[in-house]
Amino acid sequence: MTDILHRIIIETSPEKVFNAITKQDQLSAWWTMAEMKGTVGSVACFSFGPNGEHKVEMEITELVANERVCWKCVSGPWIDTGAFQFNIQADERGSALQFSHLGWPEPNEFYMHCNAKWGFFLTVSLKNLLEKGIGQPHPNDPSI
Amino acid sequence: MTDILHRIIIETSPEKVFNAITKQDQLSAWWTMAEMKGTVGSVACFSFGPNGEHKVEMEITELVANERVCWKCVSGPWIDTGAFQFNIQADERGSALQFSHLGWPEPNEFYMHCNAKWGFFLTVSLKNLLEKGIGQPHPNDPSI
Repeated sequence: MTDILHRIIIETSPEKVFNAITKQDQLSAWWTMAEMKGTVGSVACFSFGPNGEHKVEMEITELVANERVCWKCVSGPWIDTGAFQFNIQADERGSALQFSHLGWPEPNEFYMHCNAKWGFFLTVSLKNLLEKGIGQPHPNDPSI
Repeated sequence: MTDILHRIIIETSPEKVFNAITKQDQLSAWWTMAEMKGTVGSVACFSFGPNGEHKVEMEITELVANERVCWKCVSGPWIDTGAFQFNIQADERGSALQFSHLGWPEPNEFYMHCNAKWGFFLTVSLKNLLEKGIGQPHPNDPSI
């Protein structure tokens, strides 16, 4: 098993990081178009592709306000992988966010592609949304 | 042991990707300030920090023109990790670059920080240097 693991500092409060990972309009502003209720046990739908034709469904499995968000892919390309976890901690500069996409069967080309994409979405799109007010969500992310 | 593994597509030739990883002026234009001869067995020096005060030395251990570049850290923060490898293949869109930083003793916070940084340097800085003519090297990378 192999994991994708990133850690970044964002100069904003843990509450604002939590909101960016749990609110439909904010997820749509840094990752990709989201349709969701945002409650534990509900399923969030994310759209990919030039016209949003590829759908990914994530069950929201855990929410701890301003600290932790967990998803499990229930349909789409990550169905054979484990949990998505966002862990937020207060940091002297604002917030430390640890992102984990656990349980890849092997570190294949798709793993390496997704690892690079998460690097972009976290260090550029999410960070800029929260620090500067503008993200760079899919399909305007780098075409890698 | 844990590895950092990324794979990206760059819309340029394998030769141009190889040059960007082996030439002092180009490494300085997407990663960080480099001083190097660029021959196998020689040591390249890279500078980090606001004033370039932190030095990292990498021995260039393998060069296969337009295909493969390998480094080994001989002083600096990655001394306890394994090889850095850049593997380049022709792709229908230009080039596929696989980056590996192998052999981390554990996936600690520094591993997660470096994984996020490499995501930025590859998907944004190197890709933009080769596709648009301008990179975003350290110290102008995101402060994560």
